[in-house]
Amino acid sequence: MAVQTVAPSTDAPAVDLGPAAALSCRECGERFALGPIFACELCFGPLEVAYDLPVGDPEGLRKKIESGPENIWRYAPLLPVPADVASKPNLNPGWTKLVKADNLARELGVTGGLYIKDDSGNPTHSFKDRVVAQALEAARAFGFTTLSCSSTGNLAGAVGAAAARAGFRSCVFIPHDLEQGKVVMAAVYGGDVVGIEGTYDDVNRFCSELIGDPLGEGWGFVNVNLRPYYGEGSKTLAYEICEQLGWEIPDQLVIPIASGSQLTKIDKGLQELIKLGLVADKPYRIFGAQAEGCSPVSAAFKAGHDVVRPQKPDTIAKSLAIGNPADGPYVLDIARRTGGAVEDVDDATVVEAIKLLARTEGIFAETAGGVTVGVTRKLIEAGLLDPTLTTVVLNTGDGLKTLDAVEPTTGPTATIPASLEAFRAAGLATD
Amino acid sequence: MAVQTVAPSTDAPAVDLGPAAALSCRECGERFALGPIFACELCFGPLEVAYDLPVGDPEGLRKKIESGPENIWRYAPLLPVPADVASKPNLNPGWTKLVKADNLARELGVTGGLYIKDDSGNPTHSFKDRVVAQALEAARAFGFTTLSCSSTGNLAGAVGAAAARAGFRSCVFIPHDLEQGKVVMAAVYGGDVVGIEGTYDDVNRFCSELIGDPLGEGWGFVNVNLRPYYGEGSKTLAYEICEQLGWEIPDQLVIPIASGSQLTKIDKGLQELIKLGLVADKPYRIFGAQAEGCSPVSAAFKAGHDVVRPQKPDTIAKSLAIGNPADGPYVLDIARRTGGAVEDVDDATVVEAIKLLARTEGIFAETAGGVTVGVTRKLIEAGLLDPTLTTVVLNTGDGLKTLDAVEPTTGPTATIPASLEAFRAAGLATD
Repeated sequence: MAVQTVAPSTDAPAVDLGPAAALSCRECGERFALGPIFACELCFGPLEVAYDLPVGDPEGLRKKIESGPENIWRYAPLLPVPADVASKPNLNPGWTKLVKADNLARELGVTGGLYIKDDSGNPTHSFKDRVVAQALEAARAFGFTTLSCSSTGNLAGAVGAAAARAGFRSCVFIPHDLEQGKVVMAAVYGGDVVGIEGTYDDVNRFCSELIGDPLGEGWGFVNVNLRPYYGEGSKTLAYEICEQLGWEIPDQLVIPIASGSQLTKIDKGLQELIKLGLVADKPYRIFGAQAEGCSPVSAAFKAGHDVVRPQKPDTIAKSLAIGNPADGPYVLDIARRTGGAVEDVDDATVVEAIKLLARTEGIFAETAGGVTVGVTRKLIEAGLLDPTLTTVVLNTGDGLKTLDAVEPTTGPTATIPASLEAFRAAGLATD
Repeated sequence: MAVQTVAPSTDAPAVDLGPAAALSCRECGERFALGPIFACELCFGPLEVAYDLPVGDPEGLRKKIESGPENIWRYAPLLPVPADVASKPNLNPGWTKLVKADNLARELGVTGGLYIKDDSGNPTHSFKDRVVAQALEAARAFGFTTLSCSSTGNLAGAVGAAAARAGFRSCVFIPHDLEQGKVVMAAVYGGDVVGIEGTYDDVNRFCSELIGDPLGEGWGFVNVNLRPYYGEGSKTLAYEICEQLGWEIPDQLVIPIASGSQLTKIDKGLQELIKLGLVADKPYRIFGAQAEGCSPVSAAFKAGHDVVRPQKPDTIAKSLAIGNPADGPYVLDIARRTGGAVEDVDDATVVEAIKLLARTEGIFAETAGGVTVGVTRKLIEAGLLDPTLTTVVLNTGDGLKTLDAVEPTTGPTATIPASLEAFRAAGLATD
């Protein structure tokens, strides 16, 4: 297996991943050389990327960013990627629209400014392109030649697309009984797609075995052995939101929770911007959003627990359906520390919220977007989210990927013969 | 009906649509005041927008554009929209990626630089957002309150989304037997969707009747009475391609043909850029691409005809399936004048080309993109498209909208039990 020799407690990177200096354990703080590892050798805690950030010249850094490319690589000085990353073949995700949602704000009673960060504008139409792009650069740096992942569909497509463009081979693993549409999205990029006879948990277990076996030699699993790099991609959501608001942190953010990684990395990104002097230090509240049918973090938040009790997911919000979210405890900590909350909504509310967002702003979100919009409304009604403050709600994916969710309740207003009389009778003319 | 009084032969616009000065007949040249009209009163020729363009200061204009918003409104001085259009609620489409397609170039033997203009990055994931955005501003200017169209699906979604965001009512007309997925995409934005018992031709006829009836009072049909404005949106493809190439016209462009409007407007846009001094005047070749199952323009081109004989469409490239393309004769003229050609490919080639683009560049195109990529290859093989010249190929839509096309031939490489032995036996490990 291609795991690099790990030299604990040294900051000397063996590879060029830009400002990334080392991996550090989020639990015990132990540091490791940059490599395709994801768990601390001492305490088994998750590893994350530690940086030598370019502090001391916020004006220069801001100018450099603003004159950079219109994608995530404008933030290359803050990401685990080489400085020349923009010249390498990749999908150049990010710099998606931050939509001022005045119509939705009126419906929800938000007066302080409401924005949708719409990540459906990414190349494969979900935020996954951001994280996969980081994993791809790590894979390049570590000399991997095959890009892989375990996936329930969306991630497989993002990996397949990124690998195709970058000239990597890809081989992704999915449960064998996935909907045909998702299989098509994964397989169309020409990489190998392997259906595993079992559940998503079985797929995950299989991938862990493969990483430890010579069969997996030269394989970078974006969400396993490249996970510390992969996760950093979510920081770019924080960077973009603040830059698009004129280098200001919004008062409140509503973020979906699957593993919880995205929420914790957005918080990390905001902290970095403050440290670098790119934004003024100010209080902000982070809210987590789950579907009721998979709400382990929300349940723990409400019960006042520090640990998250796993659940068996049963919700239409499949992209958020992780019953045992690895970063759950960190999410709880961030929500509590920032004065936020974690809330959940049922599937009917998810559908209603997808339609609300579509009807008011012309944005067709996937179920995860229905979760965040639905939770936003619920939080306002409960007095937990302050409608007089600037609020950013994330939509992390595209409604075209979860048509099933709205299909049963979304149809024609009327079906009529091609005659003016029939149209008049349908009562749809303007008077 | 809300048709404005038309004062022939005057250039004084009754409404503020920026540099748009009048409508002029493409056949007889007669001019009409700006209004919701689409056919010449004298000769029934199609009307198009005539401009007072800001000539004389190319440097100033270029700077203004470059400092404008990252969407089509950077070109507001060249479009039939008011100067403050960017501040009005709309979907802000455009400024999509121009992808340097080096992998695809290698496969096709293109050495002069190959680019994909990828319009799947638009808000509702097709180029339709560009044209609908223009129609919306015209509707605002003419005081319409309902936005409408006849559609086979994609346009209905683009209209529904744009109307929702802009606070317009929408009511769109589709054939009653459309696939459920397309109905969902049209209806999810909350406007009225009316299924007409009949074919798309019946839907079109019905809409023409409705425009002439008091029932249609206050209705703007983007592709009928607002068509002259609507069509101008396609010019932005020409503007963006040239700006993204560093204010240079590419040597060759491959453009899909449905009605032919897009191709003619791209040519119009290029001519405007030359006139304004924003790009150097140079020869360029425009190639049109059709599916064999709906290839009336290609057939006429090959036969040396000036007129286009209608066909009954039968192809998977449904977004291009217009059997009697209104702008067919103009397309023939442009292809011949510029030294281009019009070519078609069969459905199997369309599917193969979708996969080729996905496999090489990670771009999942809709069938129209398969048509342009497939035709590009065919034109190179025939010696009609010069592989040593800079070539831009349009992808006008997203593969997620035409999953059916690739589904029968796109599946998992293997389905195996969750064991390393089974994986080894599948022969997918790297050695």
